[in-house]
Amino acid sequence: MTSNREIHLASRPIGWPTDDNFRLVETEVPTPGPGQIVVRNQYMSVDPYMRGRMNDVKSYVAPFALDAPLDGAAIGEVVASEAANIAVGTTVLHGLGWREYAVLDATAARPVDPNVAPASAYLSVLGMTGLTAYAGLLEVAAMKPGETVFVSAAAGAVGSLVGQIAKLKGAGRVVGSAGSPAKVERLRALGFDAAFDYHDGPVRDSLRAAAPDGVDVYFDNVGGDHLEAAISVMNLHGRAAICGMIAQYNATEPPAAPRNLALVIGKRLTLRGFLVNDHNDVRSAFVSDVAGWLREGTLSYDETIVDGIENAPSAFLGVLRGDNLGKMLVRV
Amino acid sequence: MTSNREIHLASRPIGWPTDDNFRLVETEVPTPGPGQIVVRNQYMSVDPYMRGRMNDVKSYVAPFALDAPLDGAAIGEVVASEAANIAVGTTVLHGLGWREYAVLDATAARPVDPNVAPASAYLSVLGMTGLTAYAGLLEVAAMKPGETVFVSAAAGAVGSLVGQIAKLKGAGRVVGSAGSPAKVERLRALGFDAAFDYHDGPVRDSLRAAAPDGVDVYFDNVGGDHLEAAISVMNLHGRAAICGMIAQYNATEPPAAPRNLALVIGKRLTLRGFLVNDHNDVRSAFVSDVAGWLREGTLSYDETIVDGIENAPSAFLGVLRGDNLGKMLVRV
Repeated sequence: MTSNREIHLASRPIGWPTDDNFRLVETEVPTPGPGQIVVRNQYMSVDPYMRGRMNDVKSYVAPFALDAPLDGAAIGEVVASEAANIAVGTTVLHGLGWREYAVLDATAARPVDPNVAPASAYLSVLGMTGLTAYAGLLEVAAMKPGETVFVSAAAGAVGSLVGQIAKLKGAGRVVGSAGSPAKVERLRALGFDAAFDYHDGPVRDSLRAAAPDGVDVYFDNVGGDHLEAAISVMNLHGRAAICGMIAQYNATEPPAAPRNLALVIGKRLTLRGFLVNDHNDVRSAFVSDVAGWLREGTLSYDETIVDGIENAPSAFLGVLRGDNLGKMLVRV
Repeated sequence: MTSNREIHLASRPIGWPTDDNFRLVETEVPTPGPGQIVVRNQYMSVDPYMRGRMNDVKSYVAPFALDAPLDGAAIGEVVASEAANIAVGTTVLHGLGWREYAVLDATAARPVDPNVAPASAYLSVLGMTGLTAYAGLLEVAAMKPGETVFVSAAAGAVGSLVGQIAKLKGAGRVVGSAGSPAKVERLRALGFDAAFDYHDGPVRDSLRAAAPDGVDVYFDNVGGDHLEAAISVMNLHGRAAICGMIAQYNATEPPAAPRNLALVIGKRLTLRGFLVNDHNDVRSAFVSDVAGWLREGTLSYDETIVDGIENAPSAFLGVLRGDNLGKMLVRV
């Protein structure tokens, strides 16, 4: 019998996580109960929002438990089934990543067709990541053709899709910020009209130079100085879709700012936080649009793949540091 | 010939304004040109937003000029007219307060009927103040019956109307904050379900006690710790209408709060700044509702009246300090 390895949360990080916060645990491959399946995971998603669940605070999802496996989106092949409607060999999407073998109720798994798109795409462009970009830009911020869009962490999984979808939906100008010259180069290749490295100077100055006519829509993945800069540069009636604030996930002090928040009054700005699970109403439009763009070859998606479940903690630290281009995945 | 007195901006305040920033200037009563009228002002409005116009910064309205009269909403009687459609003796609402006599194009004045309501009411409950409360609560924050509403600076001109309108429109619970025991007492008399003095402890603690089931709509007149407290206590899908941030109008350092802005994501909050001039589409509903409530006696409005144009600067300092109950007016 093969063994199963999984990653447990050994302790709650204070500030930046370290390897000590995680533990690789060897267990037995689980056996399915009635109505259950066992999935051998192929890929798991590593996402910045998981950092919040490592804190023991009330939030929109329960915190991870100590001394138990972490979880998150994953895709894999069914290797044992006690469920009538899911056969061994089916590829399924589910929520129990951070382990080699997952046992779960068949109702909690969604079969996908690995011949339509590579399995990993269901965790990125065709999955929650893609829907987050699509719904945040088009529903939450209600981008209109001709507008100028700014997206932060633009070389990340969500950001790179936001910028491309904006162009495909008729944005007048798309500006992205990222954390290295290589990423900035990649944004230009993806069709961004302007891109800057936020290390090169105050974000506000870089943004103003990149968007001389101001910003109508800001898609926020960073918070902090990026949100403050966006508020400064936004035009009247601008809208910000607040998706993430990675700048402060590891902060031990509450962040100041944005110190110019009073500008929302005179500029009549709207700042709106959102979670993708509220936007299933646009899922069919999303799937249809994205499938079309992928067929045409007008939408690209980058993946940064780390091999081996034992390296999942360092992949997670990497996504917090911004080591990834596009979606950070672990090939289990 | 009678003389005319007006208040000039002598210098731009740094931090809190002082008497030295203002100058009382004696001039001649102006003579109307073709199409113009001369108005003897009876009341002028003194509003916190005027502080922003004393700074030399680009904003939604031009800054006040130095060594020239300030301006703002006023009501008075036409004493000379070179305009065919406005007769001497008409009561008009216009934008040239801070002076005893104003000369202006007749097209910039709106005749009102002083028999329908006292002249001063056109500067408060029936004017921009009332429309600000009405549109901010019902349009910008889209309050629904049964919801819990929190309004800061609740004993002020706008805040006291927000709370009452919320109750009249079916709010489940209305909570107000104010700066003195007398004001808190007044809020209870106006029908607020709960009210607290923000000096009594951290705003968040007071708000949580006053709104144990959370807040759905926050009408912000204060910013800073009040906005931070509201974000903490707001329920999922809560909306904040950002009308003013009086806590920081005189600040010389950028404010630190709200430090918990990341909560907008998980709670899916919307923060929306607004100006009343964008909401003329609800003016007729507003006039009809407010006139009805005033007739029924279900809506009260407080006024704090200071006599004499020479006391307008101290009335303005008073409104920044919160000396007023309801609308701060100068009887010219």
